[in-house]
Amino acid sequence: MDRPLVAVVLAGGTGTRLYPATRSDRPKQFQPFGGERSMLAETVRRANFADEVYVLTRPAFAESVREHAPSAAVLTEPAPRDTGPALVYAAHRIREQVGECVLCCLPSDHRVDGDFQATVETACAVAARTGSLVTIGIEPTRAETGYGYVEPGADHGEYYEVESFTEKPDAETAQRYVESGYLWNSGTFAWTPTDFLAAASETELRSLVEALEAGNPERGFEDCPSISVDYAVLESAENVAVVPASYEWDDLGSWDAFERLLDADGEGNVALGEALAIDASDNVFASDGHVAAVGVEDLVIASFDDRTLVLPKSESQRVREVVERLRKEGQF
Amino acid sequence: MDRPLVAVVLAGGTGTRLYPATRSDRPKQFQPFGGERSMLAETVRRANFADEVYVLTRPAFAESVREHAPSAAVLTEPAPRDTGPALVYAAHRIREQVGECVLCCLPSDHRVDGDFQATVETACAVAARTGSLVTIGIEPTRAETGYGYVEPGADHGEYYEVESFTEKPDAETAQRYVESGYLWNSGTFAWTPTDFLAAASETELRSLVEALEAGNPERGFEDCPSISVDYAVLESAENVAVVPASYEWDDLGSWDAFERLLDADGEGNVALGEALAIDASDNVFASDGHVAAVGVEDLVIASFDDRTLVLPKSESQRVREVVERLRKEGQF
Repeated sequence: MDRPLVAVVLAGGTGTRLYPATRSDRPKQFQPFGGERSMLAETVRRANFADEVYVLTRPAFAESVREHAPSAAVLTEPAPRDTGPALVYAAHRIREQVGECVLCCLPSDHRVDGDFQATVETACAVAARTGSLVTIGIEPTRAETGYGYVEPGADHGEYYEVESFTEKPDAETAQRYVESGYLWNSGTFAWTPTDFLAAASETELRSLVEALEAGNPERGFEDCPSISVDYAVLESAENVAVVPASYEWDDLGSWDAFERLLDADGEGNVALGEALAIDASDNVFASDGHVAAVGVEDLVIASFDDRTLVLPKSESQRVREVVERLRKEGQF
Repeated sequence: MDRPLVAVVLAGGTGTRLYPATRSDRPKQFQPFGGERSMLAETVRRANFADEVYVLTRPAFAESVREHAPSAAVLTEPAPRDTGPALVYAAHRIREQVGECVLCCLPSDHRVDGDFQATVETACAVAARTGSLVTIGIEPTRAETGYGYVEPGADHGEYYEVESFTEKPDAETAQRYVESGYLWNSGTFAWTPTDFLAAASETELRSLVEALEAGNPERGFEDCPSISVDYAVLESAENVAVVPASYEWDDLGSWDAFERLLDADGEGNVALGEALAIDASDNVFASDGHVAAVGVEDLVIASFDDRTLVLPKSESQRVREVVERLRKEGQF
């Protein structure tokens, strides 16, 4: 490519769905979850083939980001507004600092295994050559209802045009998607700043783009909705492409993910941290201390710091309800 | 009575069945479990009608005992050997220090509600007058299989002669006992030192009694079995009496006890400490932090310090298996 490849790592969230490991003061990206380093450190390391690496975060996390990723440049968002506004801000600021380039935007809290670089370089080359907004798609290994699906259209070899996006389908629809060759939307994207800002200007993020161009990010963020880049830009944009990943991926989006990632004991229990299971089977244990379980099955038992959570593994997503209640009570 | 009433509070154990609240360095008697003071402090306060109060403990706990019960005299056992040897030691030492008296021996980790003094004074008077070994019996409120039962014999008004003791009957036998007027053996006893030591001399504790009388407690404890006073002395002694209690009692012997002692929410959950239940019913939560449970029922979820335990409420006794395993691994 005739332009620099710049990685933008998004590290402004807290990762509520792994409560109680994650809390307002214990964001997911700063924890290792069984890896050698924090997820943020792993992500920045994984992106080290880029010409530059930026981490976008909130001001309160900036110091921790510098500790976990000393080699990366740090950008701080004026306000937390989900990935749509965050990526508009990143595109604008990085074009100011680096000039025309191609951005690879990636979450700081996903697990990746395999040749990340090859896929990202392909995605960036496609973005630079075609002017598309490119998402990296994952070949589904199950009919997951918690993910977004990408329907591939015309096949261009390295990439497919995107026909449509669907967020969180029901089980039956998910099964049909898997059988029809849809891909999971991994939340890892490639585009040039100019193409992305042009697409964002056609959406409800237009006034944010204008405020940034007028040199007034604070005003831009003040009135800006909290909205994901998928909803805000990708679903309505023309010229969206998907590049299938050649690596394995997991978003560690809920506690049941660890069942896929950790080795089970003879009874089907997996443990992140120390655990003792007696007549207990098919549970997920996670703790920074020690969990003991007797005679229970198919549960998540997670205990970190002074907080404990127990729920059926199949209802792992319901941690959201817990976090919602705790937030209301100022306890998250 | 023409002799002093001396209370002996047994505070040498750890109370393993409330793990993880209780651990080797967190004995049960030093914790409040929802009360205003520690169980030991409550017990000593409850015994304040006695002429003297002694606390018998192990050397490692002596300092904590002085903090929790500054008004009590402290005796330390040469070695932990269960209640049989402990009560022989207490009888011997207190007779040396106080002279002939009547002892009321009571656990430091039971919950009592009602007129404790009246029952104990009756039990002590019966012991002094008849020379019997007296146990205080509790009228059963359920067919509990975890307790010892006392079969009452001849009725002497204030007390019954004891026909027999049975430890931990099966459910059917327990039901029959309850219907036949048997009493729970509460582990609270009254006797004179001389009567008790004479009875102990007829048992496998004879060599301990002799070593104490020879002024050599260390040697006595070295060869001494770990055995409860019920097994060692009461079950074989002649002249054993039971005085029915006029108070309510619970030994807080396992986590399911809290279901009887705490007020339930609308879904039948009880909580010792902070808890959040969503679509969860009939659970026992206990924590020094915060427990959240979603969609589970009939569980014990207990989390203290860095340890967590989850088991079905109906299997609360199986915490023993956990403690046994942790002990083997040096983690209790």
